Amino acid sequence: MTEKKRAPLSFLRKQESTNAREETVKTEIIIVGDEVLAGAVIDTNSAALARGLADLGLTPQKIIKVGDDKRAIEEVLKRALGEAELVVVAGGMGPTPDDKTVEAVAHALSIRLVLHRPTLMRIQRTFQKRGMRMPALAARQALVLKGAKLLDNPVGMVPGMIVTHQGSTVVLLPGVPVEMEAILTTGVLPYLRKRFVTNPPSVLRLRTFGLPESRIAEKSARLFRRYPALTPAFYPSTTGVDVVIRGRSKVLVERCGRGLVRLLGETVYAVGDKEIALVVGEALRRCGLTVATAESCTGGLVGDMLTNIPGSSDYYRGGVVAYSNEMKLRLLGVRAETLKRHGAVSAQTVREMARGVCRLMAADIGIAVSGIAGPTGGTRKKPVGLVFIAVAAGEKILVERHIFSGSRRMVKERAAMAALDLCRRAITSRRPLSAIRRPEKGKGI
Amino acid sequence: MTEKKRAPLSFLRKQESTNAREETVKTEIIIVGDEVLAGAVIDTNSAALARGLADLGLTPQKIIKVGDDKRAIEEVLKRALGEAELVVVAGGMGPTPDDKTVEAVAHALSIRLVLHRPTLMRIQRTFQKRGMRMPALAARQALVLKGAKLLDNPVGMVPGMIVTHQGSTVVLLPGVPVEMEAILTTGVLPYLRKRFVTNPPSVLRLRTFGLPESRIAEKSARLFRRYPALTPAFYPSTTGVDVVIRGRSKVLVERCGRGLVRLLGETVYAVGDKEIALVVGEALRRCGLTVATAESCTGGLVGDMLTNIPGSSDYYRGGVVAYSNEMKLRLLGVRAETLKRHGAVSAQTVREMARGVCRLMAADIGIAVSGIAGPTGGTRKKPVGLVFIAVAAGEKILVERHIFSGSRRMVKERAAMAALDLCRRAITSRRPLSAIRRPEKGKGI
Repeated sequence: MTEKKRAPLSFLRKQESTNAREETVKTEIIIVGDEVLAGAVIDTNSAALARGLADLGLTPQKIIKVGDDKRAIEEVLKRALGEAELVVVAGGMGPTPDDKTVEAVAHALSIRLVLHRPTLMRIQRTFQKRGMRMPALAARQALVLKGAKLLDNPVGMVPGMIVTHQGSTVVLLPGVPVEMEAILTTGVLPYLRKRFVTNPPSVLRLRTFGLPESRIAEKSARLFRRYPALTPAFYPSTTGVDVVIRGRSKVLVERCGRGLVRLLGETVYAVGDKEIALVVGEALRRCGLTVATAESCTGGLVGDMLTNIPGSSDYYRGGVVAYSNEMKLRLLGVRAETLKRHGAVSAQTVREMARGVCRLMAADIGIAVSGIAGPTGGTRKKPVGLVFIAVAAGEKILVERHIFSGSRRMVKERAAMAALDLCRRAITSRRPLSAIRRPEKGKGI
Repeated sequence: MTEKKRAPLSFLRKQESTNAREETVKTEIIIVGDEVLAGAVIDTNSAALARGLADLGLTPQKIIKVGDDKRAIEEVLKRALGEAELVVVAGGMGPTPDDKTVEAVAHALSIRLVLHRPTLMRIQRTFQKRGMRMPALAARQALVLKGAKLLDNPVGMVPGMIVTHQGSTVVLLPGVPVEMEAILTTGVLPYLRKRFVTNPPSVLRLRTFGLPESRIAEKSARLFRRYPALTPAFYPSTTGVDVVIRGRSKVLVERCGRGLVRLLGETVYAVGDKEIALVVGEALRRCGLTVATAESCTGGLVGDMLTNIPGSSDYYRGGVVAYSNEMKLRLLGVRAETLKRHGAVSAQTVREMARGVCRLMAADIGIAVSGIAGPTGGTRKKPVGLVFIAVAAGEKILVERHIFSGSRRMVKERAAMAALDLCRRAITSRRPLSAIRRPEKGKGI
């Protein structure tokens, strides 16, 4: 959420909440670490911090990453303090000399460093417990900014710190993700909520599969025009588009969300953060149904996704990865004639695969996928990305034909997603598994 | 890598290469996206970009993230151009009106936007192939900066762009990670190498599985002390530790790498960037062997990993996800007595699973995994994270016992990695599949 986007709503918002101090709290995040600049690690701290702040309505305007360099940290911090009232700095608080954040902040804000005895004793005890003497360097983590509010680190040694400086607030956190997240949750967010937030924003996420971002934007444009006080955002990924609606008024956000669900219909697979495998799992559990998978081009990915959900053994019977025609024949009972006449990648074959795995595993529902993941193996009639999917339940069956674009991995991910989504629709749709849907042309994302 | 860390080597480096222009190319990365600032997604683009640049010796000094806000993008870009000669901007190039990067860059650099007909036609064709009409908004992705060098996007619609402006170079990339990475690899890095890099650093990556980072650091400390001109780095992840050696001299880097392989022995599964599934696939292909999988707790992940490799159908016969005991009995021929006496998570059961899937699928090698992925289902004797793995070839068999820590997903990933790694060692070790290794205690990462 940026200033630009908020501008047209500012009048309205002032009417809604006159005490909306959080609207004006400008926030920046600074991430410190050479390993981040070298791309050696994927920085998850930015996202965890940003999400925690955004949920309080303190969405940062900028996230800046710098190396473990004292001058660079100082420069970036001073610039951030010129632009923002709240600056959260994470990283560079370890015990070794290449950790320079605390020193840099002390120097930039002209605050003295002092030894915090309780922290020093805590560090000493931690080493004692492990039967080790404390290395001299470890004491560096007991140096704190004079006058800072210290935040307990439940999983590590160095405490978090909050200092105020000429009306701005600076929060310091260690860079080890578990430590950062622990202090954020137990110390920082409660402090910021009390200090800055009177009325946190409402957020609603709709997860969709089957329509491209531009199509969703088009379909929903009129609806969103009717809610000028809300900020919609589209987050596309390989396996679908999430639509997030943010706004001050919970009632408006929810009303708009209901409107969007009506507009997008069956393409919405979840309201909230749920994965497709969890949505399918909950539906299966609710209906007391079991499921089995017969996979060709996805190679086991559908089973992998289903079993990412704790307790999936209650409804997932198992699966066959039938990567060769022989396995399709022998294990799944696909007829030789079907393979010969229509090929392994065909509506007829996935149909027989889905029915076959139901029988083999004594499952209520069978999911089958067969396709050409690429990058080679395509023909004019059967191009790379062509995928057939079937969901069978007894005599009833749904079949879909897709053409997915992208790399081999993307085709696999989209095919697995489409298979689970078809299973979801088969269970939850109003005409569950009743219509035999003829293979369609080119449905997909 | 910061100036400070490089300092002790600077004298040496100057002797080695007097023409080291790449040493002085200041680089910044700008990541654009409201979803990044709201913490809605974990930004993997920064790391992928930073890593690609670092491998060319163009390690960025700063990574800045801003929202989809035209003014903010312009301001950050102008500031970056004041500090750096190379600025890489990723994100905000989608089709919807909230994607503003191209406009912002055009405005900041005073470059006109022009419609690029070939790109427009390409977008139209993509929609046609899916049997959909092109939404009007999609045409926005065909607007390019006048005079820009366009970089082909092999997996999406919008092209990458490179423009030069008052001696600085600006690179624009889409934010969808697969698209960003594809254009980076095929277009941006080759261009930058030619343009900026006269003497790229030598980089050697060793991929290991089975030892924690601290143990590898300890084992290799003496070796690295003998190579003061080289910079080693350890990159731990869920499924192992990569050790990267960087330095000016290719000869030294390679000599040090050979020393490290000797020190770490079988735990090194690849020299270079190869995934474990590719290493296993190449070994199978070399030996003319086929493989089949019998998975319980990994739920299909081992098959999924194997089939991520193009051409894997040449050696992967297929697999069974035997998530229930019944499937282990009926399909894989595990004896009821074995299950009753030792349980599904036991050395005896994986042994029979591995042999069973070999028979069932007529494969030369069978890989079996059974374990407790958690978060529930553990007992005192069989805790969450306990995983047994077997690799069978005819009468020969290897069995390993692991206890993995972490979330359900982490246990699954580690178990699948361990299974493929055991298969690799079984094929490539000097005593291939000859020793029957007794289940060990607590091996793992």
